[in-house]
Amino acid sequence: MKNFTSIEDVPNPKGLIQDVINLIDQSNHSTIGKEKTLGMVFFNPSLRTRLSTQKAAQNLGMEVIVLNIDKDAWNVEFEDGTTMDGDSQEHIRDAVKVISSYCDLLAVRTFASLTNRQQDYEERELQNFLKHSSVPVISMESATLHPLQSLTDMATIVHTNIPKPKVVLSWAPHPKPLPQAVANSFLEWVTELQAEVVVAHPKGYELSEKFAAGYKVTHNQQEAFKNADIIYAKNWSSYSDYGARPAVEENWTITSELMQKTNQAQFMHCLPIRRNVVATDAVIDDSLVYQQAKNREYAAQAVIKNLLEVL
Amino acid sequence: MKNFTSIEDVPNPKGLIQDVINLIDQSNHSTIGKEKTLGMVFFNPSLRTRLSTQKAAQNLGMEVIVLNIDKDAWNVEFEDGTTMDGDSQEHIRDAVKVISSYCDLLAVRTFASLTNRQQDYEERELQNFLKHSSVPVISMESATLHPLQSLTDMATIVHTNIPKPKVVLSWAPHPKPLPQAVANSFLEWVTELQAEVVVAHPKGYELSEKFAAGYKVTHNQQEAFKNADIIYAKNWSSYSDYGARPAVEENWTITSELMQKTNQAQFMHCLPIRRNVVATDAVIDDSLVYQQAKNREYAAQAVIKNLLEVL
Amino acid sequence: MKNFTSIEDVPNPKGLIQDVINLIDQSNHSTIGKEKTLGMVFFNPSLRTRLSTQKAAQNLGMEVIVLNIDKDAWNVEFEDGTTMDGDSQEHIRDAVKVISSYCDLLAVRTFASLTNRQQDYEERELQNFLKHSSVPVISMESATLHPLQSLTDMATIVHTNIPKPKVVLSWAPHPKPLPQAVANSFLEWVTELQAEVVVAHPKGYELSEKFAAGYKVTHNQQEAFKNADIIYAKNWSSYSDYGARPAVEENWTITSELMQKTNQAQFMHCLPIRRNVVATDAVIDDSLVYQQAKNREYAAQAVIKNLLEVL
Repeated sequence: MKNFTSIEDVPNPKGLIQDVINLIDQSNHSTIGKEKTLGMVFFNPSLRTRLSTQKAAQNLGMEVIVLNIDKDAWNVEFEDGTTMDGDSQEHIRDAVKVISSYCDLLAVRTFASLTNRQQDYEERELQNFLKHSSVPVISMESATLHPLQSLTDMATIVHTNIPKPKVVLSWAPHPKPLPQAVANSFLEWVTELQAEVVVAHPKGYELSEKFAAGYKVTHNQQEAFKNADIIYAKNWSSYSDYGARPAVEENWTITSELMQKTNQAQFMHCLPIRRNVVATDAVIDDSLVYQQAKNREYAAQAVIKNLLEVL
Repeated sequence: MKNFTSIEDVPNPKGLIQDVINLIDQSNHSTIGKEKTLGMVFFNPSLRTRLSTQKAAQNLGMEVIVLNIDKDAWNVEFEDGTTMDGDSQEHIRDAVKVISSYCDLLAVRTFASLTNRQQDYEERELQNFLKHSSVPVISMESATLHPLQSLTDMATIVHTNIPKPKVVLSWAPHPKPLPQAVANSFLEWVTELQAEVVVAHPKGYELSEKFAAGYKVTHNQQEAFKNADIIYAKNWSSYSDYGARPAVEENWTITSELMQKTNQAQFMHCLPIRRNVVATDAVIDDSLVYQQAKNREYAAQAVIKNLLEVL
Repeated sequence: MKNFTSIEDVPNPKGLIQDVINLIDQSNHSTIGKEKTLGMVFFNPSLRTRLSTQKAAQNLGMEVIVLNIDKDAWNVEFEDGTTMDGDSQEHIRDAVKVISSYCDLLAVRTFASLTNRQQDYEERELQNFLKHSSVPVISMESATLHPLQSLTDMATIVHTNIPKPKVVLSWAPHPKPLPQAVANSFLEWVTELQAEVVVAHPKGYELSEKFAAGYKVTHNQQEAFKNADIIYAKNWSSYSDYGARPAVEENWTITSELMQKTNQAQFMHCLPIRRNVVATDAVIDDSLVYQQAKNREYAAQAVIKNLLEVL
């Protein structure tokens, strides 16, 4: 594995999922990262990703350098060939070449504009990191994907030991427009499971065909929940009317009543979660969400170890 | 010791004070914290606490992860049962459960609103950490207490070797309203010393009876300073008219003239200090304040070591 | 060496430059910094300096504590004797005494006001650190000097193995007023090289005589570039009309055409660079700038090691 930015970077996804499960069952430290440095670059806020990735690297004996590029450093220019006589102070190509020269691995958190679909789906920021970094790049969420989250989610589902689970990816309400990254990435990875997958969302919230093709999609949340073993909740904004939040007539908040239609399903969410908006307190408080969050450490550790082994 | 948020958490306060004194006399490093992680969560700015606690943990071989939750992560919701459709992005219960899952010890700096006395004195933020953390919690100052400071102060006073000192906790002026935490906490801990304690403050600045009961209180600063061996200066705002700063007719700034009324007393302050407002340059420059600040490292080290030993 | 804030602190500059070159040729780790702490204090943004200095300290086994004093801590008062009843919360003398008490070495990044020349050239902030720190101080750029950059630059130039190079320090355009620190510092250090040095800048951009005295200065950029082996580009604002940007008629942007007048010169710049303003993409992309940035790690490592050896 040379980078970790999408399942397409992973030669053996099932093996990597199993590595995570092994760490869930028995966490461990090693010194494989001794005298090696992970650079973590953030363009926007992060809690789980920041802490779990730093912890994972330290479990492997690495040094970690964190750069909040928006606060600690300079305004970054992303356009090539531009005359930089405005507000941006450093070009992304220079920043990435320099940062990567101090690191053995580079992790980066970029963001979706939600206003320019083409630019977001071309992953302009992440591609700049991949193009200019002299070391392997780990995505800590990009404009359209969140592979560390999805690797975590797969390991968490497999770890439930439910045979051939019915897994429902359910849209849920949110007061602000959010990216499609977690949902896209979930669909990229869930093919690795022996599972029946249903995507449930209101009309207008169709995901990109690149990710949704081949999956059963329904606009009937109640129908989708029937006999479900795993409910994976997530809000996202519109892909077709990019970044919009089309009106939704029904109440898609996930409640205990709704969960009762399932086969005693486990509730999952990547956090942070808007309580009593995405799902009710009762649903969240009896769920896998904290195990998922903890498993982020193990997913990051498995990925970092894998990348270190081939340095 | 299971947590460190108040003297009430400490089974043997005198023993802990002695541990700090031992480190003052001979600082040392150990590897008791090897492969263990301290998470430090800040809701507001900090210099001494941030640096001394991080240093202390590193002296014990720990890894440290720092989260400026207000800047690096999300807006935090503290109310239970609320529908989170506004600005707050993550509930404190979720944040604490997740953060603590990556750590072996969790240190947190919360703050006083100074507008809602009941909420502050119920320590709503800190209690959420205690309730939801899966690991021991260290207070790096809360709404109403600052136990790492007070432990430091006790060790610093004992280390002066003054027999049965007269210790004066003196209110002093400040341009902004400040919490009562340092003063409250000082009174919680000073009972451990063989000392005569006097609290001096202008009318209207009475501290909560919970902390002030049993101590001699005077509104006459000059009288209080007579024969004093230790002057501990601190500003606080009103408890009864919560957060207000009632007008004060006399000048309570601590000057060299005032110090001459004492028994060559040592001047103490927790820093940061407003020079020539709380006390004059001459008083501060010939004082224990820097030794106090350095002792914060040793107090934090003694507390962390104590907590690690019973993990 | 007791501090590192100017070439004047360095007993043997040529030896220190050679130490950096040795690390360029063969980087290495050591444990000389084990159980020692570097405090890094920033008053303003930084990318290269932040990352390279942290990396260098870790290469030597040190712990690193980073304080963004403007964001993580308090507003700092620099005036002595002032009555601190306004916005500033902590006096620089108290902050430095306290911070240095937790560290074995203290690195600080201060800034030029560009409005008060006397204050900048007296290095008020840095001098406060030197006066009040109990441990050696490393400048990570001050108001008027940037010695880690200049040490890097000298090692980078020597490492090109060009015998007796013609080195041109060329002013270049920039949309904002910048300090003279990099240029001043370059001139302080370049005397250590066997080189012919020319300073080229438009009228009105004369540097302080303290640094420029003895160097050939020209206002003709084209003339300066003839037969040059090294072009070191940097913008700075006016010293005489302090902080101003007098109008410049010619275009001083460094282009491939201009570079063709040289003796196949290597282009250098300290970064961040405004592309197509200071120099064109083509010039930057075929240059020493990334090697320079990487060499910052080695320069910091040589300096820290030197300071640790005499602790």
